[in-house]
Amino acid sequence: MYRPEIKVMDCTVRDGGLMNNWQFTDEFVRAVYLALSAAGVDYMEIGYKSSDAAFSRKENGPWKFCDEAPLRRIVGDHKTAMKLSAMADIGRIEFDDIPPKSESQLSMIRVACYVNQMDKAIALAEHCMDKGYETTINLMAMSKVMERDLDEALNDLSKSRVPVFYIVDSFGAMYSEQVDVLVKKCTAALPGKTLGFHGHNNQQLAFANTIEAIIRNCNRLDGSLYGIGRGAGNCPIELLMAFLKNPKFDLRPVLAVIQSHLLPLQKSIEWGYHIPYLITGALNEHPRSAMKFMADADHSDFVRFYDQMTEVTPLE
Amino acid sequence: MYRPEIKVMDCTVRDGGLMNNWQFTDEFVRAVYLALSAAGVDYMEIGYKSSDAAFSRKENGPWKFCDEAPLRRIVGDHKTAMKLSAMADIGRIEFDDIPPKSESQLSMIRVACYVNQMDKAIALAEHCMDKGYETTINLMAMSKVMERDLDEALNDLSKSRVPVFYIVDSFGAMYSEQVDVLVKKCTAALPGKTLGFHGHNNQQLAFANTIEAIIRNCNRLDGSLYGIGRGAGNCPIELLMAFLKNPKFDLRPVLAVIQSHLLPLQKSIEWGYHIPYLITGALNEHPRSAMKFMADADHSDFVRFYDQMTEVTPLE
Repeated sequence: MYRPEIKVMDCTVRDGGLMNNWQFTDEFVRAVYLALSAAGVDYMEIGYKSSDAAFSRKENGPWKFCDEAPLRRIVGDHKTAMKLSAMADIGRIEFDDIPPKSESQLSMIRVACYVNQMDKAIALAEHCMDKGYETTINLMAMSKVMERDLDEALNDLSKSRVPVFYIVDSFGAMYSEQVDVLVKKCTAALPGKTLGFHGHNNQQLAFANTIEAIIRNCNRLDGSLYGIGRGAGNCPIELLMAFLKNPKFDLRPVLAVIQSHLLPLQKSIEWGYHIPYLITGALNEHPRSAMKFMADADHSDFVRFYDQMTEVTPLE
Repeated sequence: MYRPEIKVMDCTVRDGGLMNNWQFTDEFVRAVYLALSAAGVDYMEIGYKSSDAAFSRKENGPWKFCDEAPLRRIVGDHKTAMKLSAMADIGRIEFDDIPPKSESQLSMIRVACYVNQMDKAIALAEHCMDKGYETTINLMAMSKVMERDLDEALNDLSKSRVPVFYIVDSFGAMYSEQVDVLVKKCTAALPGKTLGFHGHNNQQLAFANTIEAIIRNCNRLDGSLYGIGRGAGNCPIELLMAFLKNPKFDLRPVLAVIQSHLLPLQKSIEWGYHIPYLITGALNEHPRSAMKFMADADHSDFVRFYDQMTEVTPLE
C-alpha cells in the first residue's frame, strides 16, 4: 500500500515504558532513535509529558516526563529528519508543563483522553498548537464508548482547530468490522481532519486492524519495535514497514535494532500475546486485571483467571 | 459472528507434527481430542495418511500414518461427536492406503495439492468419497499460483464431485485484500461448493485473514491450539473460538488444554511469530529457509538472514 500521506509513528519508548516505568537506558533510547531515523519512520514518541505533581520521579524514569535535558542527551549531534513526539494524558499535566516549541526538541504533543474529557483535550491540544507544536487527540478505550457520547465528542472536535484524531483500541478488543465502522463514522464527523489508528495486540489483530484502518484511509499509523507495549503490546512496526510500499522506508535498521536491543529486553519485560490478554481483549475489558495476573508468580494457571473474569454475578 | 454453517477444524496434531515429526505421546493426543470434543470443535485433523514407501516409520511418529490401531488407542471408549480427519498429500499416498470408511475411525480425508496436481487431487478425493469419507481439496501455496493456472484448476474442480475447497496460505504471505479477492474468485468459479480457509501466522495475520474469509462466506475454518504449526504456526483456535458466536462452542476446555499441554510443549518446540518467518512471509517465500535458519545455533542474528533473502542476484 503506497500512499504518500501515510505517516508512521513508533511508540516503543512511550508505550513500552508502561511495562518498566520508563526505566530505559540512554543507550537503548538512542539506539531506537537512530534505527528509526535510518528506517525512515516519521515520528518517534519518546515518552510522556507529565507534571511532577502527578508522578514520582523516583519510581518513573526520565521518559515519563520528557524534560529537555534527557531529550538533548539522546538527540545530541544526531538531529535527524524524524520528529519527536510526547504524549500528554488529560489530568496528569498542566499547561505550564509544556515549554514553547522553540525551546524544545519535541515537534508534537499527542493529547490522550477518555470520551468525557474531550473538552479538556481540545483545550490542551489548542494550547500546544499555540505554543508551536503539531498536535493530535487520541481517544482511548473507544471499544467502550457509547454512540451518543462519541457523537457529542466528535461534534466538539469537529469545531476545534486540532487537525489529527486517533482511534485508540486500548483494550485490544476490536475486530476489523469495528475499525471499519468507527473510521467511517469519524471520517463523516470530522471533515478536513486526518485520522489515525493505534491498536493493541490482545487478539493478534493490532497489525490487521491497522491494515483495515489504512484501507479506510487512515493516514497516521502507530507501531512499536517487536510490538512492545502495555500488556499484549502494539502493532509490530516491522510488520507495518514490510507492508507499506514506500521507498522512504527501510526495514533493515528496524530488524537490526530489534535484534540488538528488543530481544535482550524480553528477558526482563514480558509483553506480547498471552492468554490472559486474549481474555480481557475478547471480553472488552481494560488489561489491568490481566497485567496483575501476569505479574503473579503462578501466571500459567490462566484457566483460573478465565473463571474469575467470566464468573456470573448474581442479578440483583 | 454466528452462522450455523460454520465448521471449525483443529490442526494441532497434523500441522504441529510438522515441527516434531509427529512424535506426540498418546497422552498428549488424547488430551487434545477430549478438550476439543468438550469445546464443541467440529473436526480434529489428527495427522496424515501416508504410504510406508513415502516416509520412514523410524523417523516419523504414528500421526504421519494414522493407522487404525493408534486411532483406536486415542478414541477408546471416548467416542465423541467430533469427527476425525487426516490429510493426504498428493504423491505421498496410494489409493490402497485408504481403508473403507466402515473400517476406520476417520470421517474425513482432506487432499492437499499444489495447483499442477489438481487432476490427481480430484481423483484421490473422489476415490475417498467412494470409500465413504467426507473429503475436501486444499490448494496449497495459493499466494504463488498464477491466475491462469488457478482458473484452470478451479474449472476442473467445479466439474468434480468434491464438495469442499480450502484456500491455503502456506507461506503466511496473504493480506486481507488477497483473501478477499481469492474467496470472491473461488465463490464465482465453484458454484454449490463450500469454501474454507487455512492461514499461517508469519505476519500475525492468520486469525485476521480467517475473519476476512468468514466475512466473505467461508464456512470451513482451520485453527490450532495456541497456534501450533509449521514455522510461525496457524490461526490460534482459542482466538477463533472467542470470536465465533455459537452456543455450541466453549472456550474453557481449549484454554485448559493449552495450559496443561501446549505451554509445556513450547519448551521443546519453537513455533510462532519470529522475525525469520515474517521475512519469508513478507517475501512470499516457502518458510523452509526460515525454519532452517531457526534451527541454527545462532538464530538470533536474523539481520544476516534478511540480507541473504534480499540479496540482489545480478541480472543476466
